[in-house]
Amino acid sequence: MENGTVTYRRKVNYYETDCMGIVHHSNYIRFFEEARLDLMSRCGLSYRNIEEMGIIIPVTFVECEYVKPLRYDDNIRIESCFAKYHGVKLEVSYEIYREGTQELCTRGKTGHCFLDREMKPLRMKREFPELYQKLMILVGKKEL
Amino acid sequence: MENGTVTYRRKVNYYETDCMGIVHHSNYIRFFEEARLDLMSRCGLSYRNIEEMGIIIPVTFVECEYVKPLRYDDNIRIESCFAKYHGVKLEVSYEIYREGTQELCTRGKTGHCFLDREMKPLRMKREFPELYQKLMILVGKKEL
Amino acid sequence: MENGTVTYRRKVNYYETDCMGIVHHSNYIRFFEEARLDLMSRCGLSYRNIEEMGIIIPVTFVECEYVKPLRYDDNIRIESCFAKYHGVKLEVSYEIYREGTQELCTRGKTGHCFLDREMKPLRMKREFPELYQKLMILVGKKEL
Amino acid sequence: MENGTVTYRRKVNYYETDCMGIVHHSNYIRFFEEARLDLMSRCGLSYRNIEEMGIIIPVTFVECEYVKPLRYDDNIRIESCFAKYHGVKLEVSYEIYREGTQELCTRGKTGHCFLDREMKPLRMKREFPELYQKLMILVGKKEL
Repeated sequence: MENGTVTYRRKVNYYETDCMGIVHHSNYIRFFEEARLDLMSRCGLSYRNIEEMGIIIPVTFVECEYVKPLRYDDNIRIESCFAKYHGVKLEVSYEIYREGTQELCTRGKTGHCFLDREMKPLRMKREFPELYQKLMILVGKKEL
Repeated sequence: MENGTVTYRRKVNYYETDCMGIVHHSNYIRFFEEARLDLMSRCGLSYRNIEEMGIIIPVTFVECEYVKPLRYDDNIRIESCFAKYHGVKLEVSYEIYREGTQELCTRGKTGHCFLDREMKPLRMKREFPELYQKLMILVGKKEL
Repeated sequence: MENGTVTYRRKVNYYETDCMGIVHHSNYIRFFEEARLDLMSRCGLSYRNIEEMGIIIPVTFVECEYVKPLRYDDNIRIESCFAKYHGVKLEVSYEIYREGTQELCTRGKTGHCFLDREMKPLRMKREFPELYQKLMILVGKKEL
Repeated sequence: MENGTVTYRRKVNYYETDCMGIVHHSNYIRFFEEARLDLMSRCGLSYRNIEEMGIIIPVTFVECEYVKPLRYDDNIRIESCFAKYHGVKLEVSYEIYREGTQELCTRGKTGHCFLDREMKPLRMKREFPELYQKLMILVGKKEL
């Protein structure tokens, strides 16, 4: 975990391809999710635990740019990091590379908010100060 | 709805294919689900309402036989019916045809049980007699 | 088809939800694809035919903003149109509404390029002038 | 690899659950595929190479029994083996356990045939004798 970037590795599954012979573009959004939940978990923020605390973190936007197609059985690595956090909104960014190369295949971002179980916005700083602090530190914005 | 068989129509989506050029075999299980929920709904058993009553009906088994492959943009019709019901277990059967033909592409069955929200088995006859009766009638086993 | 906008209708399937109780965010990208292929088909540009002509139109980027969550059994309508076309790049935009309302749930865009079967860029104006003209007209940029 | 059984490990992804809070039943069919392709690969039968040889091995049937539900973030192990092979038809069987336990969650089987690129049946013994021999040995039916 260099500069807050975490690397997640996996293989492309057969069922993730489409009849164009390449990975269906919607599946990269799922790869991002796998990488994001792994990133959170490695930062001590297991999403399972977070949901048990009564916090849900839905996706508010997705952006994805497809640079080079991936195919069945390709080994990939996804580098992700917390890019922005202002207490209300969180942004995570991703880059997918063919494993063992610097060949960028996909890059993207996702936005997130923090809601309670009734899908009402949470004031994280007041209601979950520890989690708030942790995220502030992770995006490199330690409060003084 | 002839002999309790209901017909559900849809098109094959691009994202449902794989790099073999045909519909990925796991997606037929999803087509069955669409047809099953449509069947229930047309029999006055909206699954949304059933879940709101506190009943969940998970899948206990799936069987699927792949006869002829389907491709992107194919129009299909799925014929489904309630095949068995004994109060505890429900069985639904399915046949998928290329629309406008008698060309059988896939056939299958799914098994189901009736649970409460805590995933405990329900005694339908006692706890939900109306739903129980309805299902008994739908499989052609009217109780005297 | 008013101002080039085409409306595509469908229901949310059970398998499209996740354990947050709402439609998984990756599935909206699939809804966009359904709407886009329907849009093309209604404009006389069946994607199946296009692929048979030796043209593939992969996705180069996706942007999606999630405004309000959708749930199982919701009826939705997707309004899509060709937003930009410059001969090389095509952009399609989408809005998803709860059926029968003006309640915007999701909005997004996808970018596309035109490749041959070997994934080499096509010069559409020269190689497929008819398709080129048709797309120019559809985005409201008739060449004189 | 004891008695020809190979163990494949993975985690349950968030996007593999549905609004019942558990893994959607269609996804186990995908887990089976991951395990099967891993099994083949570990037996020196990389499916990517097999497709490059001009052989495709579609699924002819699927059977799956759901014993206990899996949830997001569960660690699972899938034990698979070649169960039958008669030259024409191949059968693979699977058991899914919660990692670190003997708690059986799912069991299933898939059937397969061997086709050329035009989806015509191959006579494996004559046309691909090496692959034929390998599979015969793997199911424990060495020919004399």
